[in-house]
Amino acid sequence: MHSEGILYKRQSKRAYLPDAVPDDVLQRVMEGARWAPSCANKQPWRFCIARAPEALDRAQEALSRGNAWAKAAPVLIAVAARAEDGVTRADNGVTYYLFDCGLAVENLLLAAVEEGLMGHPMAGFNADRAKEAFAMPDEYDVICMISLGYPGDISLLDEQTRAKDERPRTRKPLSETVFYDRWPASA
Amino acid sequence: MHSEGILYKRQSKRAYLPDAVPDDVLQRVMEGARWAPSCANKQPWRFCIARAPEALDRAQEALSRGNAWAKAAPVLIAVAARAEDGVTRADNGVTYYLFDCGLAVENLLLAAVEEGLMGHPMAGFNADRAKEAFAMPDEYDVICMISLGYPGDISLLDEQTRAKDERPRTRKPLSETVFYDRWPASA
Repeated sequence: MHSEGILYKRQSKRAYLPDAVPDDVLQRVMEGARWAPSCANKQPWRFCIARAPEALDRAQEALSRGNAWAKAAPVLIAVAARAEDGVTRADNGVTYYLFDCGLAVENLLLAAVEEGLMGHPMAGFNADRAKEAFAMPDEYDVICMISLGYPGDISLLDEQTRAKDERPRTRKPLSETVFYDRWPASA
Repeated sequence: MHSEGILYKRQSKRAYLPDAVPDDVLQRVMEGARWAPSCANKQPWRFCIARAPEALDRAQEALSRGNAWAKAAPVLIAVAARAEDGVTRADNGVTYYLFDCGLAVENLLLAAVEEGLMGHPMAGFNADRAKEAFAMPDEYDVICMISLGYPGDISLLDEQTRAKDERPRTRKPLSETVFYDRWPASA
């Protein structure tokens, strides 16, 4: 990783400080998500933010056991959307709301980095419980949950979780995911 | 917009300079995409990049008429993925490959901004023609195409396209997309 920018500082670790995220800081994080692009500027994303102790308790109950570490975060966000709020294109067959939510969530995560925060997107949660936690209308999909807070000391995590956070980060080499001019015969 | 960061500099305009994107610059843009998060780190995205004149000609033919302005870009990228290369979760019903591609595309667009480039994601294209252009295996979905290049002079665009680029950028107010602790009765 050659750059010092926010794209390279962003990481999905699992240790949080208990410190609250001030209103103005959280507002700026959400403002970053707000300015994401989306197909036909539909902005199908909805963010349910649990911060009050009771709301946080309810949201935590939606997390899968493997994400118990996220209960240390002072903020939990459920990202919700419905297909009908985004574009569906006949000429390419794509239903864009999930893609659009990805664009906005990445902005959210990067805006968090700019504020010294760490956001960790999670797929391990029960959607029905997440909907219940926020009294969300049933027709929405809960696409991911995000823990958000100031990064903490990884060495204080339980052994199994710490091992995950100490593992070197990896990505496929560009040669496996980026093809110039023509799909390679080997891919 | 209160910030000067790349999240706020990123825009989807329609004027390009003819200047080529140097190899090392394009490499850094793709490196930004590479480090995006994805569900279970599956990295389901594949990027087909048209730069050689013939490849660019073929890729341009996939664009819808409304995206004819994108033919001025020296680089066109088709973003492809298959559901089976990403995670599908039983507990929340989400198929993550489209969401993951959104995360990576946003990184790509922001890495482009860091290089002084402009990437414009497009949904208006014919998927079959895009697959043909890159000799892409049929089982991949073509999720979006992205024009990439150095931003040009908007005043030189045809009238209709210029009008689009001169329109003020808008987003929903946060009160319509961000809910604290509970879904509002009014939403």
